[in-house]
Amino acid sequence: MSGGKPAAEQRPGIAVVGAGYWGPNLVRNLMASPDWDLRWLCDLDTDRAARVAAPYSSVRVTGSLDDVLADPAVTAVAIATPARTHRDVALTALRAGRHVLVEKPLAATHAEGAELVAEADERGLVLMCDHTYCYTPAVTAIRDMIHSGMLGEVHFVDSVRINLGLIQPDVDVLWDLAPHDLSILDYILPETVKPVAVAATGADPLGTGRTCVAYLTLRLSSGAIAHGHVNWLSPTKVRTTIVGGSKRTLVWDDLNPAQRISVFDRGVDLARPEELGDDQRRAALVSYRLGDMVAPALGEREALSVAVEEFARAVRTGTPAATDGRAGLRVLRILEAASRSLAENGALVAVNDDALEGK
Amino acid sequence: MSGGKPAAEQRPGIAVVGAGYWGPNLVRNLMASPDWDLRWLCDLDTDRAARVAAPYSSVRVTGSLDDVLADPAVTAVAIATPARTHRDVALTALRAGRHVLVEKPLAATHAEGAELVAEADERGLVLMCDHTYCYTPAVTAIRDMIHSGMLGEVHFVDSVRINLGLIQPDVDVLWDLAPHDLSILDYILPETVKPVAVAATGADPLGTGRTCVAYLTLRLSSGAIAHGHVNWLSPTKVRTTIVGGSKRTLVWDDLNPAQRISVFDRGVDLARPEELGDDQRRAALVSYRLGDMVAPALGEREALSVAVEEFARAVRTGTPAATDGRAGLRVLRILEAASRSLAENGALVAVNDDALEGK
Amino acid sequence: MSGGKPAAEQRPGIAVVGAGYWGPNLVRNLMASPDWDLRWLCDLDTDRAARVAAPYSSVRVTGSLDDVLADPAVTAVAIATPARTHRDVALTALRAGRHVLVEKPLAATHAEGAELVAEADERGLVLMCDHTYCYTPAVTAIRDMIHSGMLGEVHFVDSVRINLGLIQPDVDVLWDLAPHDLSILDYILPETVKPVAVAATGADPLGTGRTCVAYLTLRLSSGAIAHGHVNWLSPTKVRTTIVGGSKRTLVWDDLNPAQRISVFDRGVDLARPEELGDDQRRAALVSYRLGDMVAPALGEREALSVAVEEFARAVRTGTPAATDGRAGLRVLRILEAASRSLAENGALVAVNDDALEGK
Amino acid sequence: MSGGKPAAEQRPGIAVVGAGYWGPNLVRNLMASPDWDLRWLCDLDTDRAARVAAPYSSVRVTGSLDDVLADPAVTAVAIATPARTHRDVALTALRAGRHVLVEKPLAATHAEGAELVAEADERGLVLMCDHTYCYTPAVTAIRDMIHSGMLGEVHFVDSVRINLGLIQPDVDVLWDLAPHDLSILDYILPETVKPVAVAATGADPLGTGRTCVAYLTLRLSSGAIAHGHVNWLSPTKVRTTIVGGSKRTLVWDDLNPAQRISVFDRGVDLARPEELGDDQRRAALVSYRLGDMVAPALGEREALSVAVEEFARAVRTGTPAATDGRAGLRVLRILEAASRSLAENGALVAVNDDALEGK
Repeated sequence: MSGGKPAAEQRPGIAVVGAGYWGPNLVRNLMASPDWDLRWLCDLDTDRAARVAAPYSSVRVTGSLDDVLADPAVTAVAIATPARTHRDVALTALRAGRHVLVEKPLAATHAEGAELVAEADERGLVLMCDHTYCYTPAVTAIRDMIHSGMLGEVHFVDSVRINLGLIQPDVDVLWDLAPHDLSILDYILPETVKPVAVAATGADPLGTGRTCVAYLTLRLSSGAIAHGHVNWLSPTKVRTTIVGGSKRTLVWDDLNPAQRISVFDRGVDLARPEELGDDQRRAALVSYRLGDMVAPALGEREALSVAVEEFARAVRTGTPAATDGRAGLRVLRILEAASRSLAENGALVAVNDDALEGK
Repeated sequence: MSGGKPAAEQRPGIAVVGAGYWGPNLVRNLMASPDWDLRWLCDLDTDRAARVAAPYSSVRVTGSLDDVLADPAVTAVAIATPARTHRDVALTALRAGRHVLVEKPLAATHAEGAELVAEADERGLVLMCDHTYCYTPAVTAIRDMIHSGMLGEVHFVDSVRINLGLIQPDVDVLWDLAPHDLSILDYILPETVKPVAVAATGADPLGTGRTCVAYLTLRLSSGAIAHGHVNWLSPTKVRTTIVGGSKRTLVWDDLNPAQRISVFDRGVDLARPEELGDDQRRAALVSYRLGDMVAPALGEREALSVAVEEFARAVRTGTPAATDGRAGLRVLRILEAASRSLAENGALVAVNDDALEGK
Repeated sequence: MSGGKPAAEQRPGIAVVGAGYWGPNLVRNLMASPDWDLRWLCDLDTDRAARVAAPYSSVRVTGSLDDVLADPAVTAVAIATPARTHRDVALTALRAGRHVLVEKPLAATHAEGAELVAEADERGLVLMCDHTYCYTPAVTAIRDMIHSGMLGEVHFVDSVRINLGLIQPDVDVLWDLAPHDLSILDYILPETVKPVAVAATGADPLGTGRTCVAYLTLRLSSGAIAHGHVNWLSPTKVRTTIVGGSKRTLVWDDLNPAQRISVFDRGVDLARPEELGDDQRRAALVSYRLGDMVAPALGEREALSVAVEEFARAVRTGTPAATDGRAGLRVLRILEAASRSLAENGALVAVNDDALEGK
Repeated sequence: MSGGKPAAEQRPGIAVVGAGYWGPNLVRNLMASPDWDLRWLCDLDTDRAARVAAPYSSVRVTGSLDDVLADPAVTAVAIATPARTHRDVALTALRAGRHVLVEKPLAATHAEGAELVAEADERGLVLMCDHTYCYTPAVTAIRDMIHSGMLGEVHFVDSVRINLGLIQPDVDVLWDLAPHDLSILDYILPETVKPVAVAATGADPLGTGRTCVAYLTLRLSSGAIAHGHVNWLSPTKVRTTIVGGSKRTLVWDDLNPAQRISVFDRGVDLARPEELGDDQRRAALVSYRLGDMVAPALGEREALSVAVEEFARAVRTGTPAATDGRAGLRVLRILEAASRSLAENGALVAVNDDALEGK
């Protein structure tokens, strides 16, 4: 136990449900956190849970959620089970008066997600969706640059997330990969800029029964455009996002640890064509700014440890987490609209406001 | 004069019209060609034409197309004037019985382009569109790999052509940059694979009055998808095309002269899910091939010198050039459909077959 | 326990000494190995050892090497303690009749390393040095390409290993980083090609009291040259090795997981100048081959798991490991010669053959 | 003729000698310059000279240097002939009272170069060496950063200039490529930092009779080290220089036009070990600064046009050019010392000060 960490009994108790792919990361980060007392790891496969919990003598293992919820010291539950079970597990925990952190996506459908948000609201509990990318130093820095006005008004966002990816048995490439881009977009954009419509096209060239290559276009209320390319069939891995602003433009290359973010003070200044004579027009229409490029130093903290800290802050203060249930709901609404567009040959589908979603 | 080059009087005479941006390249390549006898450079700005022609004492300069066409030794005309003048200049030359090479795009509209194709057909003259990229070693190699079956069936084509670009006074980013991608696509795909519909979305975030960022999706008759991102507002320059095939997938990075083309023998082999038991499903659905990657050695020949040779071949043999007027027309038809889609919020617009276009 | 893994009592017993930086990796790989029965983790800091061993109930923890050596089921010891202790720990284990695997460098000095080799020889025990890089798929592939003749004769090897590195309290940059390059070189070169002399230059521009930037040149018996640049002060990280051969040249970029090895069938063919007339000379002296480049698919296996398997093979068969004590000794001899050269302003220092070292 | 360019008779007259590889670039830049009136192009191969001069009606062609020097309007001569002829051509021009610009290297030997410097001194004429790289925006920016103190004290310079290069009939790789790095080093370092000794090693693995791979180490008077790797046998092209400073470190990648210079505010701060207790030592010895990286915007001006302007400035003001004859001489002195070291197995060879060389 590190010097500054309070004794276990002074920290709120928490349980992790799910010991599969993501659960062990939650366990590790909760154990290292000064904010939480990890008391339980729950998984139907108790052998697996036991192996994951072995290094941590204070963590009990169970196959039953009831055991967890029977422990009055448990004030919160972190859920890392398959998406189709999120609704039931989270609802049970909320109804037992526990705060909930859910792995993304919030739920399998918008309707299920809405149930969770309503339940948490009613009971005054914290519901947080673990949009982990939002807690990386890179995304935090991008959000800061947009919110501080450093980039100016956002003109376009272009995101490419392609790789040779496992073809998932239950979801298409849109539901597998686009939640990352959509949750990031939701997080970095100013509150006043909202998606108003979405169009999606895609293909299933292997005949797998689900879309393996997809393109997503979002119309934003500001007139800006956001576009994403998600692809399971690319032999090269690309994870690049460009955020074009009126003052600066930013390129985030998540696969370049030495220079993840490049901010270009470089862009076009526009002369108003109507103010120009005919022969001036071509030359004067646009002038280029060629300023320096800055790659800001980014911290190296693990995103999940920041997320776990944010969950503690939300529980302690009773205020929403940065990526709360509503954020998870907004992502689900766009995914469902995108799926509709995909089924309708790329037709533009409106993304209506929803009282429940906020923002 | 190099050893093997026939005497001027044994080579067909040609004239270049237009001494602006592209004309001097035509002049230089025609002078170096063993196939042509460049006799005239014609431009309204005769001073500029004179400067361009100065190193070549055998090239006469004129401001009048009539002078050119009055020379019976001129059998062909290469046109590098602004697009809006292509129809008039080319039609005049064709009607005077001359073969014509036109800089891309073939004409300002599909209708104008169709006039040229019909005129050339009627007179049995060669009409070639200078889709220069098609004559680069890279694109030639890609076409060969597709046509030889090395890539297998084409599943998807993804093209990104973005840069900090001059905002053009008369055309939007689609008409400025997408002709490159569309002419390449037209050239590399097998004849049996045809575009059937196109959707385009875009934005004009600077309020310039024309689209500066655009995304283009083509549905192909084979079920494959082709997508292009063209953008004048990107501070980083990207010119990358991925061609995903059933056997191999290829990445063409035109900005990496040391490794323009990478061919990945890497991809997914699909098991039929219906043949599998429930618990086999997830694991067995897909298996990965991880083969070598090969970057083929490409020649270094200038594309335009190959184009000029191809024009000579077409004239000599009376057979269509690889990028003939019909190819130029097919590109125009897609551009017009894309513009319509752009105006209709990205609705899918059919690209009908056209008897005139062939293919 | 995986299906094919023999029961613990059928596998030779092993102990790990040292639970610091490298020890936990040894523990993890030995536990996952079907070849070994890991029985002990020994470290003076028994708390640390206990934490490392916690997930593995079968591993006992002790602070005393005596406990380990008193266990007759222990047939081998893997040592991951600081270099200055290697001699004592390894000698104790060898004298107790145990096979020994030592983390690199084999020992703090060539003399100490020689003691270990002699002791192991005398007792017929396996002494292996964990030159981990030699067990990576990349280095294995390079060795295969050289030994199969695919590269032809090796002309030059150029290695750059630079980074913003921790300035070590006890060793200079040469002893910290060059062992990697030297052990790789020792492993990949044919047995007939031996280092004959070494020169080293360096600088300590920060006044730390130890060399932070160093350059190393090795003269090989074949006339080839090998050069290394090791540097703790570079803000960019580079780990690139070029192996120039008479048939092909290879570039290994260890920081590019997507393309670690590129093999260029590209090079110079030399005409004999004495066979040429004067005016032919300049043009004909050299002709370039511009062939394809191939990036071979490499497996993804963790190097240490291969090393642990190789140690088992050596123990089982009684034959030397690929990186045996003699390999460790050869690296130490070059390091000591390089240090001497560094102290003598870069003078060339002979690297004599040594009966003990073999090769 | 551009608006601001003075009439030919108001500009000093100049002649270019040599119409081979570099001459045409001189012709083009002198014609575009507002500072010079290019009057002659002189080459023994008058046909070649005529072709080069054709676009410029005002330039006379001759095969005889006498014609040039007989023209009283010619005040300066720019020499782009082979290095072995530099001494004779330049000496003739200087003795005829003309200012001289010589392509690098200044002469074939230090002794010949010294003759030129002495002759120019005696006659009060400008002798400039065309170290073109020094006039690139990148090198100018690096010099500014060093001279302004932005980088702090220079700790090390590491330069790699490797490629598949033409094996030269008369010079080795050191004399072919290292002049670039040496002239750059001479230009960017503060006047107080001088080379004091040089060591060079190399190899001729193809048996061409000349060194094809070479490594060069320079000891500087400040205690810093400069190292260069020049290589004709590398299948990949690298042109990268790292300048490590006490405040910032800079990486110049000349093959990355989008980001040629990266300045890292990242480095090590050193605690004095003698001030630390034993247990503090390891941890506290060094702390890292992880600041931003800045890639400064660089202009796009052609280096040779800046060199031609600098030559005019030197002639007009009677002050030495930034890369004057003395700079050319300093480069020759190091090259000769390096050749001596190469012949002596890499022994450190002193580079003595020389009154003639200045600096």
